Amino acid sequence: MSEIDLVLTACQRAADAAPAMRAADPSKLAVLLETVAAKLAEKEAEIVQIACAESHLPVPRVTGELGRTTGQLRMFANDIRQGKWSDHRFVEALPDRQPMPRPQLERSMIPIGPVAVFGASNFPLAFSVAGGDSASALAAGCPVVAKVHPAHPKTSELVGSIVSAAVFELGFPAGVFQLVSGSNEVGAALVTNPNIKGVGFTGSKAVGRHLMDIAAARPQPIPVFAEMGSINPIFMLPGALADRGEALATGYTQSLTMGVGQFCTNPGVVFGIASPEWDAFCGSVAKGVSEVPTGTMLTEDIGKSYCINSAHVLAADGVETLVKPTEAGQPGLARTTIETYLENKDLPEEVFGPFGILVTANSIEELKWLFPVLEGQLTGTIQHGTSDEELVKELVPLLEERVGRLVFNGFPTGVEVCEGMQHGGPYPASSDVRFTSVGNHAILRWLRPVTFQNAPKFLS
Amino acid sequence: MSEIDLVLTACQRAADAAPAMRAADPSKLAVLLETVAAKLAEKEAEIVQIACAESHLPVPRVTGELGRTTGQLRMFANDIRQGKWSDHRFVEALPDRQPMPRPQLERSMIPIGPVAVFGASNFPLAFSVAGGDSASALAAGCPVVAKVHPAHPKTSELVGSIVSAAVFELGFPAGVFQLVSGSNEVGAALVTNPNIKGVGFTGSKAVGRHLMDIAAARPQPIPVFAEMGSINPIFMLPGALADRGEALATGYTQSLTMGVGQFCTNPGVVFGIASPEWDAFCGSVAKGVSEVPTGTMLTEDIGKSYCINSAHVLAADGVETLVKPTEAGQPGLARTTIETYLENKDLPEEVFGPFGILVTANSIEELKWLFPVLEGQLTGTIQHGTSDEELVKELVPLLEERVGRLVFNGFPTGVEVCEGMQHGGPYPASSDVRFTSVGNHAILRWLRPVTFQNAPKFLS
Repeated sequence: MSEIDLVLTACQRAADAAPAMRAADPSKLAVLLETVAAKLAEKEAEIVQIACAESHLPVPRVTGELGRTTGQLRMFANDIRQGKWSDHRFVEALPDRQPMPRPQLERSMIPIGPVAVFGASNFPLAFSVAGGDSASALAAGCPVVAKVHPAHPKTSELVGSIVSAAVFELGFPAGVFQLVSGSNEVGAALVTNPNIKGVGFTGSKAVGRHLMDIAAARPQPIPVFAEMGSINPIFMLPGALADRGEALATGYTQSLTMGVGQFCTNPGVVFGIASPEWDAFCGSVAKGVSEVPTGTMLTEDIGKSYCINSAHVLAADGVETLVKPTEAGQPGLARTTIETYLENKDLPEEVFGPFGILVTANSIEELKWLFPVLEGQLTGTIQHGTSDEELVKELVPLLEERVGRLVFNGFPTGVEVCEGMQHGGPYPASSDVRFTSVGNHAILRWLRPVTFQNAPKFLS
Repeated sequence: MSEIDLVLTACQRAADAAPAMRAADPSKLAVLLETVAAKLAEKEAEIVQIACAESHLPVPRVTGELGRTTGQLRMFANDIRQGKWSDHRFVEALPDRQPMPRPQLERSMIPIGPVAVFGASNFPLAFSVAGGDSASALAAGCPVVAKVHPAHPKTSELVGSIVSAAVFELGFPAGVFQLVSGSNEVGAALVTNPNIKGVGFTGSKAVGRHLMDIAAARPQPIPVFAEMGSINPIFMLPGALADRGEALATGYTQSLTMGVGQFCTNPGVVFGIASPEWDAFCGSVAKGVSEVPTGTMLTEDIGKSYCINSAHVLAADGVETLVKPTEAGQPGLARTTIETYLENKDLPEEVFGPFGILVTANSIEELKWLFPVLEGQLTGTIQHGTSDEELVKELVPLLEERVGRLVFNGFPTGVEVCEGMQHGGPYPASSDVRFTSVGNHAILRWLRPVTFQNAPKFLS
C-alpha cells in the first residue's frame, strides 16, 4: 500500500474504533492511560537511549521528559476517573409549567471522534506519539492517529508499539491508536480525511497555518489546535535592573540557552529602557552567552535554519552583533533600538535556537509603540523591582492582550503541567487562544457537548 | 461616511472600549445586562408592535420572545455575578520542590475582545440585536458590534437604542455596543476587521459558510460561531405508532407548522418503517397539514424560496405529493422511499418553512443506510413505544454522532434556555459542534484563559 493508502486505512480503522471508545467507561480509559504510563516507565532505559541518540538531547533532559510524559498520562487518568471534564448538567422536567412544560434535559461532554496528532521535533516524548495531545485525546475517548516525526522515527515506533500493546492487552480495537509516517502529503491526507474530527499539532508557523487552512477548507471543517511557538518577550523594568541586574543577566542567559534554545517558550527578545544599568545588563548577557558552549541541535535542518536566521538578523541595518554564532547550536546575541526593531519586519520573527535580541527603548512611551504590532505570544514576562509598581500596572493590560501566560520575575521556559497552566496564545502563537495544549484543560479540545431530552430510563 | 467606513469606525471604537470592559467588575457588567432587560420590558408594547409589523409573527409569539430575551440577559447577569464561568484555578508555589521549584500559577477566563453579531430573521428579538449572542458576549466582557438584519431594521434600531442608553447611563464607553447596517459587504468588512475577535451568526448555510471561510482566511483567523439550521430528523419507531399513532400525527403536524415552520429546529423529515400503522400516520399527517391555514412568512424572499424549494422537492422523481403548497406560507407534505431520499442529493436539503418529507424504509436495516450520509443536525428525535427498547439502543449511538440534541418522545421545536441545553450540532448544523448558541454555556464562545505566573500582590 502507498503511504496515502495507509493513511486512509488508519483513519477508517480509527472511525470504526470510535464507538467502542465512546461506550467505554471512563475508568477503563483511565486504565488504558495508566497501562501506557507503566509500560513506558518499564522501558525507560531503552526509550531514553533511543530518544537521546535521535534528538541529541542529554540524558537528564530526556529522562525528565519521560517522567513528564508518564505524569501527563496519569494526570488525565485521574481526571477522567473523577469525571472532572464531563460537565454533566441535569435539568429536571417541569410538566406543569405554564405556558409551556419544561422537558428533562441532560447535557454532558462526549468525544469528538478520531484525532490526528502531529508531534514536535523538540519534545520526542512529551509532545509526540504518547505526549500531551495523544494522552488528552485518548482520555477524552477519541481514537488517535499519530504521525511519526521524521526527527525521531525510532523513538516514535518504540513508543507507538508500547501504546498499541496496552490497547491490545485491554481489549480495545487496534484502531484506537495508530501510527502513520511519511511525507508532507501524508500530513495533508490525515487532516483532510473525513473521518478525522480534530488535529493536534506542535511545530512551525508555516506548517501550522497550512494545516489550519486545509482543515478550514474541508467540506466539513474541523478544528486544528496548532501550537506554533513564539518569541516570548521579556520586559526588563528599571527597578528590576537596579535591584538585581547581574542575577537577571545570569538568569536570562540560562533561560535563552537552556536545551540549546529549542523550547517554544524560549525568550528570544528582551526590551529595556536606555540607562547605565541596561547597558551593564546587555554587557553581562553578552559575556555570559559568549561563554556558553555550542550544543547539538535536534536535527541538521534545524541547525542550518538557525545559522541562516541568526545571520540574517545580525546582518540587518541598525543591528549590533554582540555574540555571533559561527556554527549550528552556538548561542548568539544581537542588540538594536526599538525603532529598528519595529521598522524591520524580519526582526520579530522567531529564530528557533539559542539566539536573543536585546532591544533598547528611550522611554516607557517608546516601549509602548511595540504593543499595537506585537504578534500573539505564548508568554510575556515582566521583570520588575521595588520601584516599578505603576509601570507594571500600565503594562499588564497591554501584554495580557497579546499572550496566554504572563510571567512575573521569572523566565518563561519551564511549562508546569497542571490546572493552572495556559499554554497557547493569540495567533500566531497558537491557532485558537481559547485552548491550551499543556495541563488538565488540554482535554477540552477533544470534547463536545450533547443534550439528551427526556431520555428513557433504560438508556442510563 | 460610507457603510464600510462606518464599520471601520465602529470596530475601532469597540477595540478602544475593550479595556474598560475587561477591567469592569462582573457585577457592573451584570447591572448593564439587567438594565437592558428592564428597559426592554418597560418598552414592551412599542417593541412588540414594531417587531410584529416587521416580522409578521403573531403578538403572543413576539411577546414570549421578548420575555425570553430579557430572561437571557438576566440569566447571564446572574451567572457572572456568581463567577460561574471564570474557571479560576490557583496552583500554589512549591519553592522547595526538587528538581525544579514550582511557581505560583493562576488561570482564569478573560474576554476575547470585540465580537460581531449577525442576528437571525426568524427571531427579531431573542437572536438579534440584544439576543443570546449579544447578551453572552457582553456578559463575557466583550464589546459588541451588531449588524442590523434587513428583515427587521426598525426593531433593531429601537432595541439598539435601548442597549446604548443603558451603556451610556452606566458610564461605559459608547464602543461597548454599536449597530451597523447595510449590504453583504458590510458583513464581510465586519468579519475581516482586525479588531473583531469572534463572530456570532444565525442564518443560512450559504452565508454562514461564507463568513467561516473569510474568517479562516484572515491574517489572524478568528472563530465564527454560525448556527445554520438543519432538517431535524424524526424516527418514528413501530412501537410508538402502535401505542399512539394518531397523537403522533397531531403532534408532528403542530411541530412542523408552528410559527409557519420558521424554526431552526423545525422537523423537516420523518423516517418510518413500512406498515399499516405508518401508512395511517402518513395519512393523518397529510390530512392535518392540509387543514393548517396559510401563514405569512417572515419576508417576501423567504416566501419565494419556500415556494421554489418545496416545488423542487415535489417535482423530483419518486416523490409523491401529499399536500402541495400553492402559495408562500402554505404548509406542504411529500412522501418518498429511503432509496429515493438517499439517491437525490436535493431531498435532504432544508426547505425553510412548514414543509415535511415522510420517508419510508422497508426495515430497520434499510433505515440505517441513512447514517453514513446524514449531515450534522441540531437535533434528532426518536419516537419510541413499549416494544422499541432494543431499537432505541441501536439507534442512539448512530444518531448521537450526527446531532447536538437527542429528543425522546417529544418534538424538537421549543429550545429551553438553560444549562442543560445544547443548541449546535456537527457541521453544517453549526460551525463548531463544541459550542452552543443557546443556554448558559453560550458565554464560553467569548472567553479565553490566561495564566498569571507569580503575579505580585499589588495586582490582585
